[in-house]
Amino acid sequence: MALKTVQSKSPRSRIHRLRLSFSALRSDALLVTHLPNIRYLCGFTGSAAILLVEHSRATLFTDSRYTLQARQEVHDAAAVIATHGLLDALGEALRARRGTIRLGFAPAQLTVAEKDALQNAVGARLRWLASPGLIERLRAVKDAAELALMRRSARLISEVWTAAVRNVKPGISELAVAADIERGMKLQGASGPSFETIVASGARSAWPHARPTPKLLRKNELVVLDQGAILRDYCSDMTRTVFLGRSAVGARAGVRSNNKVRSLYAAVLEAQEAAIAAIRPGISAATVDAAARKVFKRLGLDRYFTHSTGHGLGLEIHEMPRLGRAEEAVLEQGMVVTVEPGVYIESLGGIRIEDEVLVTSRGAEVLTSASREFLEL
Amino acid sequence: MALKTVQSKSPRSRIHRLRLSFSALRSDALLVTHLPNIRYLCGFTGSAAILLVEHSRATLFTDSRYTLQARQEVHDAAAVIATHGLLDALGEALRARRGTIRLGFAPAQLTVAEKDALQNAVGARLRWLASPGLIERLRAVKDAAELALMRRSARLISEVWTAAVRNVKPGISELAVAADIERGMKLQGASGPSFETIVASGARSAWPHARPTPKLLRKNELVVLDQGAILRDYCSDMTRTVFLGRSAVGARAGVRSNNKVRSLYAAVLEAQEAAIAAIRPGISAATVDAAARKVFKRLGLDRYFTHSTGHGLGLEIHEMPRLGRAEEAVLEQGMVVTVEPGVYIESLGGIRIEDEVLVTSRGAEVLTSASREFLEL
Repeated sequence: MALKTVQSKSPRSRIHRLRLSFSALRSDALLVTHLPNIRYLCGFTGSAAILLVEHSRATLFTDSRYTLQARQEVHDAAAVIATHGLLDALGEALRARRGTIRLGFAPAQLTVAEKDALQNAVGARLRWLASPGLIERLRAVKDAAELALMRRSARLISEVWTAAVRNVKPGISELAVAADIERGMKLQGASGPSFETIVASGARSAWPHARPTPKLLRKNELVVLDQGAILRDYCSDMTRTVFLGRSAVGARAGVRSNNKVRSLYAAVLEAQEAAIAAIRPGISAATVDAAARKVFKRLGLDRYFTHSTGHGLGLEIHEMPRLGRAEEAVLEQGMVVTVEPGVYIESLGGIRIEDEVLVTSRGAEVLTSASREFLEL
Repeated sequence: MALKTVQSKSPRSRIHRLRLSFSALRSDALLVTHLPNIRYLCGFTGSAAILLVEHSRATLFTDSRYTLQARQEVHDAAAVIATHGLLDALGEALRARRGTIRLGFAPAQLTVAEKDALQNAVGARLRWLASPGLIERLRAVKDAAELALMRRSARLISEVWTAAVRNVKPGISELAVAADIERGMKLQGASGPSFETIVASGARSAWPHARPTPKLLRKNELVVLDQGAILRDYCSDMTRTVFLGRSAVGARAGVRSNNKVRSLYAAVLEAQEAAIAAIRPGISAATVDAAARKVFKRLGLDRYFTHSTGHGLGLEIHEMPRLGRAEEAVLEQGMVVTVEPGVYIESLGGIRIEDEVLVTSRGAEVLTSASREFLEL
């Protein structure tokens, strides 16, 4: 095992930006164990890794399964292939440093076993400095390279949905629709869905997180389709709701629920547009949430909107900031969030419309592009 | 928040079996944070949960998103819906206990943040007793209910593969084959793949963990297909390798590699059968690995077999025991392991054959049922 010093390629590198934040905390180094954070900082996507970021170097520890992959992927850090466990190799590297080592770490991302092993390896001169959320705060604001990937991932899911919805009709099962959507993602190069695709029809559409079942779609049912893909590690997330009403057999009941459905759909769309219109740098997450809620309240529908308005996304499907009540986080240019108000009425079903929105210098740009018009199939 | 005492339904419950092991460790309670362990012990499948197992009761802590789901799923434990965080609720419950609390925990599955929060909530009378692997050791031996699900998951992947391989032919892309396989799983009721499906053709088949790409399959190529599904939370895992040789255009090169490929295929199959024949209760994991390796050595192929022979699986895709060199774990009736020898030759490609095997009282039963005959397409 040999240590090699690699300077960050550019002062603008993500690792460089991270150093600015842990310098302020007066720590000598930062320990990174959460894999999406490692992917973010140095590009490595293997399943076994620890990253140590110091002021003048960064070192990625992985194992021999990933020798070639580390060589191909890792930037701004030296890769060390550990022969007897990652923690052993990291402990050895820390022992080689002189004097007291003030090590920043995220307490929610370090296990007791990892902390104890390092303490035993290095001894009392290893001091721990809890510094949660440093990297997550950087990740909330996407840089240009990330935005390019987020745009592609958002475009992919929009196109896959637009193609898949052509086959949505009475008689096909929820599972078959979900399988078609996930197949479409894969064919377009996604590594897989960013969460288990939701296709929920009829009464089941009123469950915000229903899993698809063998149930067949029927006439006069609402169908909520919530899906996202992982493309080159970046998640997308989009929801559309369609109504299976276009049939001669609809009869009176069908026509009535159709009108009710149309007005509910218009309400959800209005709430979504109000929330999107509220988005701009400097505004709080709670303000965006309130903008959607205000529309529902005026229409007497607020009790049917049972979740928060949205969430950040990127390398993970849920990231900072959360757009919910009492969320004080302030939006910044470059953040990407979902805006996904919905109403869920037990007797009728659910309607949710979700898009990905980029916070721009002047306001908001919607990244997902599938039509939001009321779609009756 | 109210605590309710629920006795385990039966002395044979999994929680009861766990209590026997932590009684021997003289702990008062065991903290369970790893979600597959929680699913195993009390049936809960939500994404936010902590389970506290005491001698006379067990308590599952989750949040309000899962109120209904906890009511439907949880057995052998009382469910507590935490209003201010799971750790707060758990801390409150522990504070209500009298005297010293010796709390067993798995250091690799508890974060520093969780441990500190509980210590602060309960104070010095909370003592920590590291007891790693207690539940994983139980999980290695499947009970009757688990075996029924493992059989279904293994049958599903066998049937999906058998149907999908009909479309494997020159001109179709690796990604399209993978997408078809994953669609097939989903249509049969799987929640998704247990890992990203591998379809690796030609030179890429020599990479044991190649991800599918837009590359088209070509004549005279080997194609490794490694896939598994998650059915009702239980993973399956099976690999087959086919050869695209059945074509008039094969010419001499084709015929030659065909013969070479046939003999390599026979070698891998022989190694797999030797390993399966070695499986029975009481034998070490290393012995099974050695049985496969011995066949390759006799044939001068041992340097091409670059990974271990197999691994346990169940609620997770990799579980105890690992079938590798120097693995001293002893096989027991009821364990389910993969047996997956392979050879990887840079110029020619790779061949791997993998099945799931149940350790029975007398030997081994293969659970995956797709044909292992040399398949030339």
